[in-house]
Amino acid sequence: KAGWNDLDIRAVDTARLLAADAVQKVGNGHPGTAMSLAPLAYLLYQNVMTHDPSDPAWLGRDRFVLSCGHSSLTQYVQLYLSGIGLGLDDLKSLRTWGSQTPGHPEVHHTKGVEITTGPLGSGLASAVGMAMAQRRQRGLFDPDAKPGTSPFDHHVYVIASDGDMQEGVTHEACALAGHQELGNLTVVYDANQISIEDDTDIAFSEDVAARFEAYGWHVVEVDWRGDADGDEYVEDVDALLAAIRSGDKVRDRPTLVVLHTIIAWPAPTKQNTGKAHGSALGDEEIGGTKELLGFDPKKSFVVEPAVLKRAREVVKRGKAAHKEWDKGFKAWRKANPDRAALLDRILEGRAPEGLSKALPTFPADAKGLATRAASGKILTALADVMPELWGGSADLAESNNTTMEGEPSFIPSSKQTNAWKGGPYGRTLHFGIRENGMGMILNGIALEGLTRPYGGTFLVFSDYMRPAVRLASIQQAPVTYVWTHDSIGLGEDGPTHQPIEHLAALRAIPGLDVVRPADANETAVAWGQILTNSHGPAAMCLTRQNVPTFDRSTYGKAAGAAKGGYVLVQESRAGDPDLILVATGSEVHLAVEAAEKLEKAKISTRVVSMPCIEWFARQTKGYREKVLPSAVRARVSVEAGISMGWRDIVGDAGRSVSIEHFGASADAATLFREFGITTDAVVRAGKDSV
Amino acid sequence: KAGWNDLDIRAVDTARLLAADAVQKVGNGHPGTAMSLAPLAYLLYQNVMTHDPSDPAWLGRDRFVLSCGHSSLTQYVQLYLSGIGLGLDDLKSLRTWGSQTPGHPEVHHTKGVEITTGPLGSGLASAVGMAMAQRRQRGLFDPDAKPGTSPFDHHVYVIASDGDMQEGVTHEACALAGHQELGNLTVVYDANQISIEDDTDIAFSEDVAARFEAYGWHVVEVDWRGDADGDEYVEDVDALLAAIRSGDKVRDRPTLVVLHTIIAWPAPTKQNTGKAHGSALGDEEIGGTKELLGFDPKKSFVVEPAVLKRAREVVKRGKAAHKEWDKGFKAWRKANPDRAALLDRILEGRAPEGLSKALPTFPADAKGLATRAASGKILTALADVMPELWGGSADLAESNNTTMEGEPSFIPSSKQTNAWKGGPYGRTLHFGIRENGMGMILNGIALEGLTRPYGGTFLVFSDYMRPAVRLASIQQAPVTYVWTHDSIGLGEDGPTHQPIEHLAALRAIPGLDVVRPADANETAVAWGQILTNSHGPAAMCLTRQNVPTFDRSTYGKAAGAAKGGYVLVQESRAGDPDLILVATGSEVHLAVEAAEKLEKAKISTRVVSMPCIEWFARQTKGYREKVLPSAVRARVSVEAGISMGWRDIVGDAGRSVSIEHFGASADAATLFREFGITTDAVVRAGKDSV
Repeated sequence: KAGWNDLDIRAVDTARLLAADAVQKVGNGHPGTAMSLAPLAYLLYQNVMTHDPSDPAWLGRDRFVLSCGHSSLTQYVQLYLSGIGLGLDDLKSLRTWGSQTPGHPEVHHTKGVEITTGPLGSGLASAVGMAMAQRRQRGLFDPDAKPGTSPFDHHVYVIASDGDMQEGVTHEACALAGHQELGNLTVVYDANQISIEDDTDIAFSEDVAARFEAYGWHVVEVDWRGDADGDEYVEDVDALLAAIRSGDKVRDRPTLVVLHTIIAWPAPTKQNTGKAHGSALGDEEIGGTKELLGFDPKKSFVVEPAVLKRAREVVKRGKAAHKEWDKGFKAWRKANPDRAALLDRILEGRAPEGLSKALPTFPADAKGLATRAASGKILTALADVMPELWGGSADLAESNNTTMEGEPSFIPSSKQTNAWKGGPYGRTLHFGIRENGMGMILNGIALEGLTRPYGGTFLVFSDYMRPAVRLASIQQAPVTYVWTHDSIGLGEDGPTHQPIEHLAALRAIPGLDVVRPADANETAVAWGQILTNSHGPAAMCLTRQNVPTFDRSTYGKAAGAAKGGYVLVQESRAGDPDLILVATGSEVHLAVEAAEKLEKAKISTRVVSMPCIEWFARQTKGYREKVLPSAVRARVSVEAGISMGWRDIVGDAGRSVSIEHFGASADAATLFREFGITTDAVVRAGKDSV
Repeated sequence: KAGWNDLDIRAVDTARLLAADAVQKVGNGHPGTAMSLAPLAYLLYQNVMTHDPSDPAWLGRDRFVLSCGHSSLTQYVQLYLSGIGLGLDDLKSLRTWGSQTPGHPEVHHTKGVEITTGPLGSGLASAVGMAMAQRRQRGLFDPDAKPGTSPFDHHVYVIASDGDMQEGVTHEACALAGHQELGNLTVVYDANQISIEDDTDIAFSEDVAARFEAYGWHVVEVDWRGDADGDEYVEDVDALLAAIRSGDKVRDRPTLVVLHTIIAWPAPTKQNTGKAHGSALGDEEIGGTKELLGFDPKKSFVVEPAVLKRAREVVKRGKAAHKEWDKGFKAWRKANPDRAALLDRILEGRAPEGLSKALPTFPADAKGLATRAASGKILTALADVMPELWGGSADLAESNNTTMEGEPSFIPSSKQTNAWKGGPYGRTLHFGIRENGMGMILNGIALEGLTRPYGGTFLVFSDYMRPAVRLASIQQAPVTYVWTHDSIGLGEDGPTHQPIEHLAALRAIPGLDVVRPADANETAVAWGQILTNSHGPAAMCLTRQNVPTFDRSTYGKAAGAAKGGYVLVQESRAGDPDLILVATGSEVHLAVEAAEKLEKAKISTRVVSMPCIEWFARQTKGYREKVLPSAVRARVSVEAGISMGWRDIVGDAGRSVSIEHFGASADAATLFREFGITTDAVVRAGKDSV
């Protein structure tokens, strides 16, 4: 039982009205769900979740994800009532420039907000990642503790909406959550059956409970609605609490509580309408609601001191819980000094000291190695030195080379297969053919904070992941994508599988570092650079086919790759070169060959390898000028993709060797030849530019 | 009962071996599924589907979608055996340059292939669109015919795989298919439980049958596996046929047949392995299979004449069915001359003659109109003149203005709501919050061929649709996207909802026309231009906020928008201007205001409105030179998004007024000011460029 008294009930009604008032003040927003979910939200923050308002970043806290991010007030009001950062003025400045209360919750912006949500489905899908990360973290730091006794035990709570259930990404993530038996995840699904097009019956009639049971979830239904017109609507919080708590006993399944509500309850005329979902209710409707609830209809943002005092009692409870946890944490530190040192390093955001030493170097080899293969070797080499690193693939492990050799799979023991052995604390992730789900899960893992995830698929399927990649960038989540088969070099699978526009389209995303190393040693340097940075996502774009491993005694050092662009082949003549070839990835060796031919034709030619345009842009002007002297206007870019974006580097006089159309099904060599990505094409473009 | 004789069984075994031989010859590909699904595929082409091999484009044909496109041989071999275009040599040239048998099936490339598949989930999701389109087409051309009696009746058959079931997009589309009660859709799901990471148990354990029942589908299971090691595997085609046919009686639900198979059956050692999924089996394994099936292990590509003759009997049956259909079609033509004229026009790919006349013009208005609002009025104006046009939104109808006023919803009658009335033949689509599903469905509708679909969401959520948009471009499907709220002008919903990189990222997709009209009249011209072209997709990127409707007696005519770029404001001085401002959409009016200020500062300034870079690029060099004289190097682009791509137009001396970072939550006016998308910023950039 929740044990609420009249003050709690008053606090819930206060929460409803604060939501309505805040939207009314700014003139737009989403009041309805925040009103009807006020009892649920209050219950979570007061009775269910373990958290410490005076230390919102406390390691032992439960995580809260508001997947229906448009209903940000559901969370903001509780942050205020619980005493986590926000004041009444913050609620009054909802959705305005510079406020702590933006339209959708934003992590790193508002205290107590764990994740940026808004795009439907993303929050719930990332919450699955948080729950997975919690298990992995426990396995890393405290694997032998009994259930519920470790400082690394915590739970992930989610509020989701009808929209979340419709989006495909939640299918992907929730199917995997059931498969992974995530007993540490509880989702309350607010089935209010209203979205922007009003009654969801127009597009949505599936049996969500049955669907989640098919995924292997523990499902409980709670119905607050009375008869059809809502006259007997009863907000039975005890039943809701019992449903949520019923999941505690089900340790091998995530829990879905299907909570049937009426949106905007108890607004007298706009409850249960699409209008209440996404628009201010209007003074009259809000006044009517206030009268109904025994508030003065003429006053706004009213919070009675006794109510606030009652709600803020959670601060004391939180402190006590934290204190209790501290004891266990101290004992753990003492008993686990190595693990404690690892935790401290991770919490400080430092890469391991042995990182760069652990990176393999690859001998020069004209026949070469695919950069995806090099990447696989590098990951294996890093396994011991960087325990927080883990990842996997969306069913392309062998193609993406994402498995650290010998590391166990992250999988319930009963679900091991002949090909993959492991256990619940394993390290190799198996996402299934669920790319966007993988992306969102990676975000959740990164946001949990103690491990560092990567995930692989073919570069062309970065399209499927794009919503997740954008959210990683917005949230500055240190996720690494391993996108292999990064050009027509993919070969016979044809146009649906060959990336053409993807490098450009990914570079377009602010805050994402797109890295396309030229050979095995650039791949190692790039991994080192990425793992040293913990402030945002990066993409490794890797070849399927072999590329020569350059002889670094002749050519520029691979370390230059960390600067994003560097001189790989110095021109023969002193002074500025006649021509600069700028290439990435598998086309760098074409530029090198072309330079040899051009030099023979007395054109002094420099080759710049540019694995990461974003990193290069962050170098000093002096460095950039040294690599690309502005006096040299004859420039050619070489990349097996569209030329978009390269004009910024090659300039008006420059040329781009590129592919501006979709690919075709044939072997890679034929495609490079037929589509004109050849040494000769680079030579011609070079002469043309000069 | 299928009524197969020994020759049919021999034909099925021949099909298996052709698949194995074809992959072995080229050295790579996917033999396993094509081997184990040969009985299913043969059954579909011989016993189930209505089709005419001598006229693969016959209007009355059933549609076939191979959602597991990697198993293209499943289809190619049947196309060959049925006599639809392909010969034995085509199978021998699998996955090679210029062949009719690319790695994945490609529409418009191989006769008898209805759709390009490969990216998992896409085929099944688009098949839902085909089934929806079939119903709408029937409603358009022959609404009063009794079920099964119309020449416009046909069925959509799909083969799907484990991967399809994992992808989120099939959740979206299949949930909608159940909701829409698509009795004309039958999916056979090949549950072989093998994908690239081998046994799918590692990532996939949901109860697919229960899940589809939760969607409202009719589900039947057929299990060909005997005991666990497959010794008693029995390919019971009669049971399979009965399961498929059981759907005929269920008119108000789509049918899912869950067919449990063993991949690569009956290969002696590689059946039921991940190796058989995506690699050539090797001569030894293929030899063993041949012996097992009573074929000469030393011979490849063997097709016994009697077997081919037996299989080709379908040609005669197809002709007879077509002839029978012709009678009904002729009778329909006679009884429906107006509808027949409409059909003829559509089949010829012609836009209606009255199209341009029907397009509204909007009076000059400084306060203006949002281009999304203009678009809504235009769609309504086109409703009568272009009956094949239909569409809707992913739960944002009112925001996207995608509803033609007064047109009924496309919805089973029992699922009408207070807000939306309609029926099974309705015109307004309700996709729910399922953007990628919407995109794939739009592709399926377009591929069905007799209607012209559009679909709307916020521009930022084009990210969710990207896999579908790319496939629309690859397939040259005339789909129109209505993407509104196309910049920070979206306002308070904040960074997760504000497109920044999207215009650039979409322009990156080959074959997609990205259109961003400046005012209401450009919007009308753009719709006219898009609907006149039936060779590929186009995106309308529209404002949330009002933009001035320009006075076309002063400024360049809106008709110029059809050329992609045109002179909106002529510079004051004769000869070349000092400066050209190139702007799109909601920023054009800023350029116009800036030009006035610049002219006052004696800088002769031209304003070019460039709603569609792709259309502009298709104009003659002469026209482009007239609009953007190459002698004028001082140029400024103005667009509330990243500058990527604009360097190609503004050149080395140019400047871009742009936003290179994510947005924020505040009102639109504040955001434009704070992010520097202002008249003054354009003036400064212009002076800088000069």
